[in-house]
Amino acid sequence: MWNFTYHNPTKIVFGKGTIAQLTDLVPKGRTVMMIYGGGSIKRNGVYDQVVDALSDHTVVEFGGVQPNPKYEKLMEAVEQVKAEDVGFMLGVGGGSVLDGTKFIAAAAVYEGEDPWDMVADDDVECTDALPIAGVITLPATGSEMNRNAVISRESTREKLPLKSDAIRPAFSILDPETTFSLPDRQTANGIVDTFVHVTEQYLTYPVNSPLQDRQAEAILKTVIEEAPKVFQSPRDYDVRANLMWCATQALNGLIGCGVPGDYATHRIGHELTAFFGIDHGRTLAIVHPAVLRHQRENKAEKLAQYGLRVWNLTGLTTEKTIDAAIEKTEAFFQSVGVDTRLSDYGVDLADCEPIPERFRERDNLGERENIGAKEVAEILALCE
Amino acid sequence: MWNFTYHNPTKIVFGKGTIAQLTDLVPKGRTVMMIYGGGSIKRNGVYDQVVDALSDHTVVEFGGVQPNPKYEKLMEAVEQVKAEDVGFMLGVGGGSVLDGTKFIAAAAVYEGEDPWDMVADDDVECTDALPIAGVITLPATGSEMNRNAVISRESTREKLPLKSDAIRPAFSILDPETTFSLPDRQTANGIVDTFVHVTEQYLTYPVNSPLQDRQAEAILKTVIEEAPKVFQSPRDYDVRANLMWCATQALNGLIGCGVPGDYATHRIGHELTAFFGIDHGRTLAIVHPAVLRHQRENKAEKLAQYGLRVWNLTGLTTEKTIDAAIEKTEAFFQSVGVDTRLSDYGVDLADCEPIPERFRERDNLGERENIGAKEVAEILALCE
Repeated sequence: MWNFTYHNPTKIVFGKGTIAQLTDLVPKGRTVMMIYGGGSIKRNGVYDQVVDALSDHTVVEFGGVQPNPKYEKLMEAVEQVKAEDVGFMLGVGGGSVLDGTKFIAAAAVYEGEDPWDMVADDDVECTDALPIAGVITLPATGSEMNRNAVISRESTREKLPLKSDAIRPAFSILDPETTFSLPDRQTANGIVDTFVHVTEQYLTYPVNSPLQDRQAEAILKTVIEEAPKVFQSPRDYDVRANLMWCATQALNGLIGCGVPGDYATHRIGHELTAFFGIDHGRTLAIVHPAVLRHQRENKAEKLAQYGLRVWNLTGLTTEKTIDAAIEKTEAFFQSVGVDTRLSDYGVDLADCEPIPERFRERDNLGERENIGAKEVAEILALCE
Repeated sequence: MWNFTYHNPTKIVFGKGTIAQLTDLVPKGRTVMMIYGGGSIKRNGVYDQVVDALSDHTVVEFGGVQPNPKYEKLMEAVEQVKAEDVGFMLGVGGGSVLDGTKFIAAAAVYEGEDPWDMVADDDVECTDALPIAGVITLPATGSEMNRNAVISRESTREKLPLKSDAIRPAFSILDPETTFSLPDRQTANGIVDTFVHVTEQYLTYPVNSPLQDRQAEAILKTVIEEAPKVFQSPRDYDVRANLMWCATQALNGLIGCGVPGDYATHRIGHELTAFFGIDHGRTLAIVHPAVLRHQRENKAEKLAQYGLRVWNLTGLTTEKTIDAAIEKTEAFFQSVGVDTRLSDYGVDLADCEPIPERFRERDNLGERENIGAKEVAEILALCE
């Protein structure tokens, strides 16, 4: 096990009827900006619950944050934050809304010229932000309990991560009932996102970390077990609750303590979203099997363990276990209705030509830092 | 899954050579009290590492905190804290030292008459404490990342828990190398303590919480796997690191999210320590199998799952799986050199007569609150 520091001060308030706790959790005396997306929270009752809970607070609203939240749109919110002297940021929605909230909170107090530099320029750190909280209505990104946000810029077709302790939510409210009305498509995207967050931290190389391995397997096995149930019974509270708690645990830092991280799938997937507008979860389902196939020798020990423990593949040779484990992974994504090939999304490999170029100037990807522009091209070819 | 709130802001700094980070982690400008136990830290080099790291801080020392830290001794430290205007408490040692540190930190700012009331009187809350940190040299209690302390009072032969968010460590340093020189007896006690912390939260009744179940099983399986290795190779860094991380994860609140807790074993075990001075871990090894036997019907579903998943007991009837799972548990404690019967410690059942009386006035124990004085007597009879 490697040395590590683990510090996750976000408070999680989990369960039925917990949105009402906003009344006490959100500090009074500061203007609160309530940030949301396309308006589904107005249809499913979440908007009303939040407004009721904050009836004695001063609240301003900013709606219309898109999936893969866009810098251009978020900067409008930054202007409003400054104009209305907002002192507390409350994101209400899925991971995109919360990621957008995090960026706005940091951008509003950023002292440099362009807040985008915190995202795009490795030499510019994000060191401060307005206080942030979330009411999460879509389990997927883990943003509710982590220091990450992913921001897109339309003008440059970029989608890049922002990471800082300054953007950790003070608290997040997770009421599984808010997810009852999710479209299957979004539920499925969240399941794939959760799954791949785990495998990005688990399917690397062994560093003698049996507890972290089993904590990762715990999430994977639970997601595999609960996924088919949620499409059968979308209003089953326990199933929704279990998937929601898995999503949070998948990317709150815990299973990554003292072990290598990959994230090549995410970084390549972000480009597919930036270029072709494919949903984030779907890009992972396309890229991840290809990354595993491309890196199967480097990941052999963990892939074999994964096949045995997560997919119960016994009685096979190591090579056949690995083959089957990768096939099972791809089949699992398909089983929740997520297609796994570029061609399924009408994308030709030729259209992807600019993507490897983007990695020519960046640090190599992968837990062994062995995935550069050439390897990205090879991986994309495996996604066809 | 039940509703829950999870909030654990303690920073964990884990790994080789991390004690040196105290230099930056401990705030300057306040007098630091370094608290330790019987002096093993002077023999194993930890004392020198701490003193070196704090060479630019103002440090006062308080040594001699006993195992099962005693109110009477701790109150001496409280006087010293007040006399020397201490502003930061650093416990260096095992769980007893850190529990003692927590009590001192709370008692020093307690405004009532007797700080013991925070421990003994359910109506008196602990709401404030000096800032606390730990350098942990014995993985066992989980105190490094939780809101608990257990304090004993010699004059009344009491051993009782103190629980408060005010006594959470700001940070804890866990360097597995500090555990290389632990006597086998203490290593074994820590293994049993870790194990039973998990089963107190796992072997209850099902509430449809598959992730929490598997997170608990992850710790149990890892402890079972690593335990024999540590006695063979006490200076194996990875084995020590894995056991240390298991101990922290066992009682930092995570696996208890949204599920019932038992703790009958701990509460009865505390009485065996209070009356007979038996090591904490050893009392758990005596009481836990008896609690499981006594409550086997109430815990049947979880015991069967535990037998199957943790002990790989397949092909048996449910009843036989449960029998075997309890036997395996007791045998595991014995396998690390911890005796599991009162008679092994020279205690007659007749000597235990005052113990059930203590539970006559208290709330019932157990996740079903069905263990009162009569049941405690029955459980003790099963410990003979």
